Amino acid sequence: MNLAVVLVSPKTPGNIGSAARAMLNMGARDLRLVAPRCNPLDGQAVAMAVHAEELLRAARVYPTLREALADRDVSVGTSARVRADLAPPRHPSQVRPLVRAAAAPALVFGPEETGLVNSDLEQCQVTVRVPTGDYASLNLAQAVLLVCYEFLQAQDETPGEMAQVPISTRKTANREEMEALYGHLRGTMHLIGYTDAVRARHTLRLWRTMLDRALMSSAESRLFRGFLRQVEWKVRDAARRGMVEGRAGNGADGPE
Amino acid sequence: MNLAVVLVSPKTPGNIGSAARAMLNMGARDLRLVAPRCNPLDGQAVAMAVHAEELLRAARVYPTLREALADRDVSVGTSARVRADLAPPRHPSQVRPLVRAAAAPALVFGPEETGLVNSDLEQCQVTVRVPTGDYASLNLAQAVLLVCYEFLQAQDETPGEMAQVPISTRKTANREEMEALYGHLRGTMHLIGYTDAVRARHTLRLWRTMLDRALMSSAESRLFRGFLRQVEWKVRDAARRGMVEGRAGNGADGPE
Repeated sequence: MNLAVVLVSPKTPGNIGSAARAMLNMGARDLRLVAPRCNPLDGQAVAMAVHAEELLRAARVYPTLREALADRDVSVGTSARVRADLAPPRHPSQVRPLVRAAAAPALVFGPEETGLVNSDLEQCQVTVRVPTGDYASLNLAQAVLLVCYEFLQAQDETPGEMAQVPISTRKTANREEMEALYGHLRGTMHLIGYTDAVRARHTLRLWRTMLDRALMSSAESRLFRGFLRQVEWKVRDAARRGMVEGRAGNGADGPE
Repeated sequence: MNLAVVLVSPKTPGNIGSAARAMLNMGARDLRLVAPRCNPLDGQAVAMAVHAEELLRAARVYPTLREALADRDVSVGTSARVRADLAPPRHPSQVRPLVRAAAAPALVFGPEETGLVNSDLEQCQVTVRVPTGDYASLNLAQAVLLVCYEFLQAQDETPGEMAQVPISTRKTANREEMEALYGHLRGTMHLIGYTDAVRARHTLRLWRTMLDRALMSSAESRLFRGFLRQVEWKVRDAARRGMVEGRAGNGADGPE
């Protein structure tokens, strides 16, 4: 998929350079200018393009939008407002599948002051509106960045993704390991008097709910059990040392 | 949902102003600066903020990231690369349900030159990487714009997607509560000799990575700390009782 970004009659060289930079950042490389009102290779444009200067210099200039879109299969217009006699603009993500399925899509942006006129939008199969907060004033480069992001970098949601991500690179503890951990935890809770036979079941349920959400790896379940083993050792060691130091008449709390 | 954008030690006033503008364009209004290396109300910052000057002037400055995140329930760090012992960064859209389900989320960006360091990322429950094309060089404002777009303007998940959010109705522990828990855990680890000064930092990072994934509620963080308090009490009590029972020639492990 070779996404072309078409700027219709841009006015400011800096905006063209910034748009080029935004394109490259999102992975778009084909910049097309329709009847620019300035020199796209002006020093200010090159300065704003930064690392995208090559992309800027490769930009092609067309006299009309129709010619700029001649080799495109799907053209997406951008609009800030709803036009009475045109289909209502869609959210960019709704158009993403259409654009990604296309071989040679185009993304069309209007002049800084006015945006695309109806006759321009009529040459696009679909129109998208870049969603913003209230009081927004997106500049051309920001709009190019956001829509290119939706088409080139946004991710198609797949069920279970949220749950898979945190454990993607690790071996998740199986149920046996987790039950062993909870059994170990119950034993430690009794040893330190954190819970008793009556409350144990309820208390442990709270801990299960909390720790199950962590989706521990096998290694992490062992890490946790190592902590519990150390608690048990310390309690018994403190008692033993207490005895010894008790005879020595020294009330230490155990080794620090 | 009140999304706060936190800029850690920003260097250039213009970047702060541009970030403020990007925030307002996406509908975010709570700007927080941690130890800025410049005057955030410098003329250049105000000029770049354009219509977001009010948001810029309302920005709060904090000495540390920890203080900036104290009242946040879900903190999302941004990172350009993968860190060895931290959870792998996710695509912003994967974190969207989590952020939208939160009451007081924060979005954290690092210094222009270096990005966030591990100790900063440790204070965030999740890390996202802004996806880009090859040869990309996103500036701070572009990164703020894109991630705010994903969280505030991108289209909602299907109901099925939202259902996977691990937290929904509970009050998630804010950062202050979690840091207090980790501080408490470190103290207990030292008391029982589970770790030492040398390994403590690495060990605690493993525990942070594991427990942050659980997205504890405030009540759960207190539950966990109650367990730690009981461990400390038991160790000291065992030492004391050991002394007593030691004289009686009886090496009990303390009360059951």
